[in-house]
Amino acid sequence: MIRRVKIVVPMGDPAGIGPEIVLKGLSKLEGRCLLVVGDEELFKKTAHDCHLELPFDKIITSEEEVDAALVNHSKVLLSKKMVNLETFKYGLVSREVGQAAYEALKIATNLTLRGSCDALVTTPLNKESLKAAQIEHIGHTEILGELTASASPVTMFETLGLKIFFMTRHLSLKAACEAVTAERVYASIRECYALSEQFGFNHNLPLAVAALNPHGGDGGLFGDEEQVAIIPAIERSQREGLNVVGPIGADSVFHLAKIGHYRAVLSLYHDQGHIAAKTLDFERTVSVTWNLPFLRTSVDHGTAFDIAGEGRASEVSLLEAIKVAERYLQEEDLK
Amino acid sequence: MIRRVKIVVPMGDPAGIGPEIVLKGLSKLEGRCLLVVGDEELFKKTAHDCHLELPFDKIITSEEEVDAALVNHSKVLLSKKMVNLETFKYGLVSREVGQAAYEALKIATNLTLRGSCDALVTTPLNKESLKAAQIEHIGHTEILGELTASASPVTMFETLGLKIFFMTRHLSLKAACEAVTAERVYASIRECYALSEQFGFNHNLPLAVAALNPHGGDGGLFGDEEQVAIIPAIERSQREGLNVVGPIGADSVFHLAKIGHYRAVLSLYHDQGHIAAKTLDFERTVSVTWNLPFLRTSVDHGTAFDIAGEGRASEVSLLEAIKVAERYLQEEDLK
Repeated sequence: MIRRVKIVVPMGDPAGIGPEIVLKGLSKLEGRCLLVVGDEELFKKTAHDCHLELPFDKIITSEEEVDAALVNHSKVLLSKKMVNLETFKYGLVSREVGQAAYEALKIATNLTLRGSCDALVTTPLNKESLKAAQIEHIGHTEILGELTASASPVTMFETLGLKIFFMTRHLSLKAACEAVTAERVYASIRECYALSEQFGFNHNLPLAVAALNPHGGDGGLFGDEEQVAIIPAIERSQREGLNVVGPIGADSVFHLAKIGHYRAVLSLYHDQGHIAAKTLDFERTVSVTWNLPFLRTSVDHGTAFDIAGEGRASEVSLLEAIKVAERYLQEEDLK
Repeated sequence: MIRRVKIVVPMGDPAGIGPEIVLKGLSKLEGRCLLVVGDEELFKKTAHDCHLELPFDKIITSEEEVDAALVNHSKVLLSKKMVNLETFKYGLVSREVGQAAYEALKIATNLTLRGSCDALVTTPLNKESLKAAQIEHIGHTEILGELTASASPVTMFETLGLKIFFMTRHLSLKAACEAVTAERVYASIRECYALSEQFGFNHNLPLAVAALNPHGGDGGLFGDEEQVAIIPAIERSQREGLNVVGPIGADSVFHLAKIGHYRAVLSLYHDQGHIAAKTLDFERTVSVTWNLPFLRTSVDHGTAFDIAGEGRASEVSLLEAIKVAERYLQEEDLK
């Protein structure tokens, strides 16, 4: 039987579009089991300003009420006083909203860690507000790494079924080129391959490794990282029995994965995978974080401070992130 | 009035899928004015092996007959004895097929140069066969540069209306990073902007320049090419009155262009634009070459020697390349 999976969604930065997309998203979902962590007064204001209904069928104020509330209700708000509406302004960087976003995330994380929820689906944080609140992390992945004591969270993108891992992320493009060593590519292949085996990817298909240089360097004509690092790493993995192929030219590898040739693609630098996913379908690009104690998915857009509170934000990414999380949880159950 | 534009299509490498997609493509097009340059016997063999009809309504054997034939016919084959069917094999690299592909391209080019045709639409060449025939160019663009004495052809991709220029192409990714200087970015902006003005792009929209580093380097946090080179080049262009914006993060610039925010995107390296175009729609990615004496478009796939002669090749790219050429020619007429 497919169980009723419980998903927790922190509100994100209250000065951004997070609360708005949560309201819109929840109103589109039926028969789910969703817990939102945020501030009831702020949600009321957002609903008013964006001409939306409050979709919650139960509002609680303590973590101790969560388990009981989720038994009989499908859209529960765990409300904490987090935002002072006297001073609150949409689109404004402040210590207070940074602190509120962090608090909501921390509560949601702890509820998932203790098993009250099965997965965490996150909405956008604002880096400047986090900094103003003296949270010294660059984003969700780093905060979650600390809150859950996880040493090496792994980010994956999923867009319309296309799955993309990243060997490196927030490095300059030059530094990303320099990071392409046989050791690192090999380690990245092993890690992503293990995750793909563990989480029910299509096992009959190989994992594809993208090339670094155009046309894979065309036999060394422009760039030798394929010869020096990527091919040796792939061959070593193959000798160890891994179903891995590559390097495949970056201009075809994502297309081929999209039409079903590979279980996933390992991209070697941030934009390689980002361009593919987000050009294919910007709103339906979901970020999945592996190697945490629980499953976490996320929208992959920002706080959009410029349109916050206007009712113009799209909930499509959030709906997609929730659906992707539900699918992985249910596949896990079926194993 | 929109004139009847005359398009010439050389057969491409005869050992590849070129002749097959020409047969398939022509059978799908009505009311056009198309001239194919190739070898009648080879087309008969391809039609037989791939279970296709010969779509030509007129077959001629001399360049002198072209103008007259195109007045009353819509699918004309200019046939030359180019391939020896006794020795010919699909998928085999050889001097003979390389020479034949080059000959067909040269005849088609000369017919366009002399005005018998309005645009050239090319099918794939095989680099190995060109080399075997001692043609020392890496591909179409270089061959056409020489045949037409054009100093600096500019390649642009077009996929479902998304237009992408390239500042650099066949360089290693490291070398492409090093090529990002203020002078070069500025020169590339000027050149692409001028082409976009000349060829009827949407003048109300800005030209967008992609960033090099993830999130545009995030203010210098990872990579300084944005500060040192790209922003100064854009600001200089803006001061000179050009409607240019950027640098825009590469993970959103192609999406934003796709939904109509920009007239075109200037990508800074080969894969940046290639990944976007080909992940969006692999088969409908058309390559356009500007700065030749005539318009040239091309399929952007290879010879696919592995499936040549099997009837499995898709003509979608060729149809798209013909349609894109027709559209630019007709827009030119409307100006």
